Amino acid sequence: MKPVARGAACPAVPVSNETVTLSHGEGGRAMRRLIRDQIAAKLGRGNVQLHSDAACLGRITKEIAITTDSYVVSPLFFPGGDIGSLAVHGTVNDLAMAGATPCYLTLSLILEEGLPLATLGRVIDSVAEAASNCDVKIVAGDTKVVPKGAADGIFINTTGVGVHSTGQRMTASRIQPGDALLVSGPIARHGLAVLAARESLGFDPPPESDSAPLHRIAAELLETLGDDLRTMRDATRGGIAAVMHEWAEESANAMWIDESQLPLLPESRGVCELLGLDPLLVANEGTFVAAIAPHRVDDALSVMRSHSRCGQPAQIGHARARELSPVLVSRGLGADQPLDEPIAAMLPRIC
Amino acid sequence: MKPVARGAACPAVPVSNETVTLSHGEGGRAMRRLIRDQIAAKLGRGNVQLHSDAACLGRITKEIAITTDSYVVSPLFFPGGDIGSLAVHGTVNDLAMAGATPCYLTLSLILEEGLPLATLGRVIDSVAEAASNCDVKIVAGDTKVVPKGAADGIFINTTGVGVHSTGQRMTASRIQPGDALLVSGPIARHGLAVLAARESLGFDPPPESDSAPLHRIAAELLETLGDDLRTMRDATRGGIAAVMHEWAEESANAMWIDESQLPLLPESRGVCELLGLDPLLVANEGTFVAAIAPHRVDDALSVMRSHSRCGQPAQIGHARARELSPVLVSRGLGADQPLDEPIAAMLPRIC
Repeated sequence: MKPVARGAACPAVPVSNETVTLSHGEGGRAMRRLIRDQIAAKLGRGNVQLHSDAACLGRITKEIAITTDSYVVSPLFFPGGDIGSLAVHGTVNDLAMAGATPCYLTLSLILEEGLPLATLGRVIDSVAEAASNCDVKIVAGDTKVVPKGAADGIFINTTGVGVHSTGQRMTASRIQPGDALLVSGPIARHGLAVLAARESLGFDPPPESDSAPLHRIAAELLETLGDDLRTMRDATRGGIAAVMHEWAEESANAMWIDESQLPLLPESRGVCELLGLDPLLVANEGTFVAAIAPHRVDDALSVMRSHSRCGQPAQIGHARARELSPVLVSRGLGADQPLDEPIAAMLPRIC
Repeated sequence: MKPVARGAACPAVPVSNETVTLSHGEGGRAMRRLIRDQIAAKLGRGNVQLHSDAACLGRITKEIAITTDSYVVSPLFFPGGDIGSLAVHGTVNDLAMAGATPCYLTLSLILEEGLPLATLGRVIDSVAEAASNCDVKIVAGDTKVVPKGAADGIFINTTGVGVHSTGQRMTASRIQPGDALLVSGPIARHGLAVLAARESLGFDPPPESDSAPLHRIAAELLETLGDDLRTMRDATRGGIAAVMHEWAEESANAMWIDESQLPLLPESRGVCELLGLDPLLVANEGTFVAAIAPHRVDDALSVMRSHSRCGQPAQIGHARARELSPVLVSRGLGADQPLDEPIAAMLPRIC
């Protein structure tokens, strides 16, 4: 018979004050204290309930939207954000892009044994600050601990619940030929920031993530444009290229992009050129694409400009009737080039 | 400058048909195909939507309950269940124990590079079957892939949404001295099953998990007993001991347990004696404790017996006015012994 799992015969595994231990995941006193002192205390009153299997949200009279995302970004901290704020912004943005007002989040942590409690504390502080900025309440939580080597620091799942204030449904199937494609700001910032931080690429200044909540600008766009706003999407994994391919497939149209119109910070352009990356394929976490009726471009750009986060919004192309290729890019070479759907792992673990 | 992240310069990382690769997590074609062929196809129509940031649940007129849990059990498959069914049952049970009817689940996967697609397929089949058995719909999902060594096979987060059919709130603060403490069936089965499977302990027959949904029996108990059902709790991590300590704290009473009344399968008793484990501290995943008004014990046991899963329900003790110890166990030695709150990692990664 092999030895029993660590600590099985005797509850003498030390409960460290400095790092996360397996004891913190086992449903007993250590876990209750960790949750009380390191998590619930930081999230503030009115947030997560300690002693309950499920939280009650009461009655919600409007239509409900729900979304879930797990965050495994490496490194945990990067210029412009960290896994905590990212886990809030990403899920808030998924609701916002669906036209919903974010209201509630659940927060589920998978912690690796040996994680410094100070690191956990920084992440939870960041979750709390981002949730407060986004006006969302954290209503339920879960904490698991796995042995050293069975995870990488912290993984976070946030599931978001929002409400549809209008009956309007935004889907890519509403995109028509001639519709304008707009982007809310400089692209490719998040993917480059995480890549440079993870690989210690030493750029000066280092590229900074665009991680930010989009619910306010999304709500204003929706209110201003109404049905003229066909659909929106934050261009995360796979970048703008992935969104264009999904929209082309769903709408049965083609998406045409003018490369010269893509807003790109000079430092992003430099990094992309140096590393041979196409910014259309690099992830964003606070920058989105919108398809709108062509006569509303100025209105939409004006809303985008009024939100300080959205420097440099731009029209980057338009929808066309489908010919051979679903996504085309004018690269200033005289002929449009088909843009392949991203296939493989260009930048793993960026969210 | 260090080498760029794998595959960054060239999208030539092979997309294996046999195992999960980093490409499957990157938002492009490989991910879309994985989700379409390996996940959505198995979950069936009416479940998860492929191309949407958020799912719309429509209007829900009743009070809403929400709960979240991440599952990191090792091994992924064990006698009586696997991580897929466990992720459904555990979250369904959290809603059921709160008196809510489970309706919707979100499903978020963190996959380790190199995971055989056949393993993923078995897990997703199990999720689908369990969800169908529980009458819950999987409405939103997420898939992330981390490099080999950064996770352990599969981690699953399920977040559950349910509705309160009655206005009744069950909390442990409603427990009064004299209330009966009932358990729905033989205890300690899940923890022992996972421990024996992980450590290859070679018991014959191997202990089998009690993993099962509890929403039907919970609803019937609630309907039958009304306010006489003070509260229920599935005794997962930390076992019955952890629940008793939480109830003692919340109700400011003491919980008294008669060890001789604990339902325990003979094989569980043997394993516990051999390994020196206290079954009160071992996790269950389909067995729960209920605190009820003393005059309703027979009614409650009769409901429990009518659900085939619940063999051997029993009254195991009662609540008392608090004296020195919050939880007491009569071990047949003439004097009641205080039962410590579980402190450390007796059995890590059992859910």
